[in-house]
Amino acid sequence: MNKDAMTETPAQQALIDGSTRLFAIIGDPIGQVKSPQTLNPRFVAAGLNAVMIPVNVKPDRFEDTVRGLMAIANLDGIIITVPYKSRILPLIDHVLPMAATVGAANAMRREPDGTWSGDMFDGRGLIRGLRDAAITLKGRKVLLIGAGGAGSAVAVAAADAAASIVTIVDVDSAKAEALAQRTAAAYPACTVRAGPVRLSGHDTLINATPIGMAPGDGLPAPVDGLAADTLVVDVIIKPNDTPLLAHARALGCRVFNGRVMLDGQAHELVQFFTADKS
Amino acid sequence: MNKDAMTETPAQQALIDGSTRLFAIIGDPIGQVKSPQTLNPRFVAAGLNAVMIPVNVKPDRFEDTVRGLMAIANLDGIIITVPYKSRILPLIDHVLPMAATVGAANAMRREPDGTWSGDMFDGRGLIRGLRDAAITLKGRKVLLIGAGGAGSAVAVAAADAAASIVTIVDVDSAKAEALAQRTAAAYPACTVRAGPVRLSGHDTLINATPIGMAPGDGLPAPVDGLAADTLVVDVIIKPNDTPLLAHARALGCRVFNGRVMLDGQAHELVQFFTADKS
Repeated sequence: MNKDAMTETPAQQALIDGSTRLFAIIGDPIGQVKSPQTLNPRFVAAGLNAVMIPVNVKPDRFEDTVRGLMAIANLDGIIITVPYKSRILPLIDHVLPMAATVGAANAMRREPDGTWSGDMFDGRGLIRGLRDAAITLKGRKVLLIGAGGAGSAVAVAAADAAASIVTIVDVDSAKAEALAQRTAAAYPACTVRAGPVRLSGHDTLINATPIGMAPGDGLPAPVDGLAADTLVVDVIIKPNDTPLLAHARALGCRVFNGRVMLDGQAHELVQFFTADKS
Repeated sequence: MNKDAMTETPAQQALIDGSTRLFAIIGDPIGQVKSPQTLNPRFVAAGLNAVMIPVNVKPDRFEDTVRGLMAIANLDGIIITVPYKSRILPLIDHVLPMAATVGAANAMRREPDGTWSGDMFDGRGLIRGLRDAAITLKGRKVLLIGAGGAGSAVAVAAADAAASIVTIVDVDSAKAEALAQRTAAAYPACTVRAGPVRLSGHDTLINATPIGMAPGDGLPAPVDGLAADTLVVDVIIKPNDTPLLAHARALGCRVFNGRVMLDGQAHELVQFFTADKS
């Protein structure tokens, strides 16, 4: 712990005592998670005696460990990360609509009646983060690269945010098709379809693949003819600037990296966990 | 959170991140526990990225909640408080000798092979605290008032610390007798017996009853003829000064309140939790 970290401590987390409320982030592995550092200062700012703790849950003990956590009377919420976002669903009493459509949840909370509700905030975080930058997806025509975990959440959140078109591209075309159908069924007002990488007819490009994280990675898809008025978002956080974002910026596009999604999500999660549920 | 508390924060607990190791104190209720505030600064001082968190376990979910905690891969130890110190025993793989004799455990830790060992530190904490004040119970003749939870732990720890006599007094004489027999069987070198409140033949008086906590409480037992060279200990923490301690001090006795036990125990617990087990 360096001197700076120590000086910053007061604002960073509540002092733990017998009355402290608990929130857990579960995953395996767990060392890489950032939710404690991200959310604990927000709990302090909200005046709460509450801390987010990392909980390493092993696959062979998943159900009983999570049921044990859910039974702790002073534990009020759980963030779910890799590899448990789908596996958590059967343990949640009320899977909220967005989580049901995505087929995965990344947060659950105890309701006043003791039951648990779960929802998916990965995509909603992006919508919130863009909104904080005064950008809405309403009426936008989105080309989404990637139909995996992040892509699924983004597709559904974009449709939920009233994008007019969401075109989903994945090397596994059956996966893109299945996601498109699921999303379209839940949001009939939005045109959701699997499609080839064609930028024409779109004003928004979102990369939800990991391509761009590794040194030497290229673009997640050919982006010939990217127009300067296209909004370009990459869900990647490290590096700050992926080849896609660098390319788009050079063309004059407005660009956002994954931090917009992360910050937006932190805001949404704190609201979900601390909302007045009574 | 006042300004002073904020200023003190850095030394008080580790900053929680994905690599933080967890220790839990379980009980019902939980709000009154002091172990987080007592142990977290000691973890910091030991250079550990670890926090003690309060965990409110409800009686109807005790076994599955505790098994859930034990399954968390980054949770290394559990303190057990009221009302679970006896109920925990069947969940512990290796009940160490002092806990077995007392019939209760207040701490358990994960061993390198994944099994859990549990021990009782309530009485051992008193021995440690007195030792830190350069006092040993070795060869002492102890009159112990109270054969309940605290009394049981103190009786066994006194015998373990080589007291020559432990006389146990309780309004429930059968309870005193049972504790005496159990302790004597485990420590044949010590004379352990149930007995009346008679100070003669003793050089140490320990109150392990709650009498003295409530305003208006009198003495836990008649102490006529208390000699000035008697060591007098009261396990009570609030108030600082019980009627027994005030009376004894007025007679010139050396006295200790419950803080000696608490401080000694914190030291022992951190050692138990952080000892090199490899």
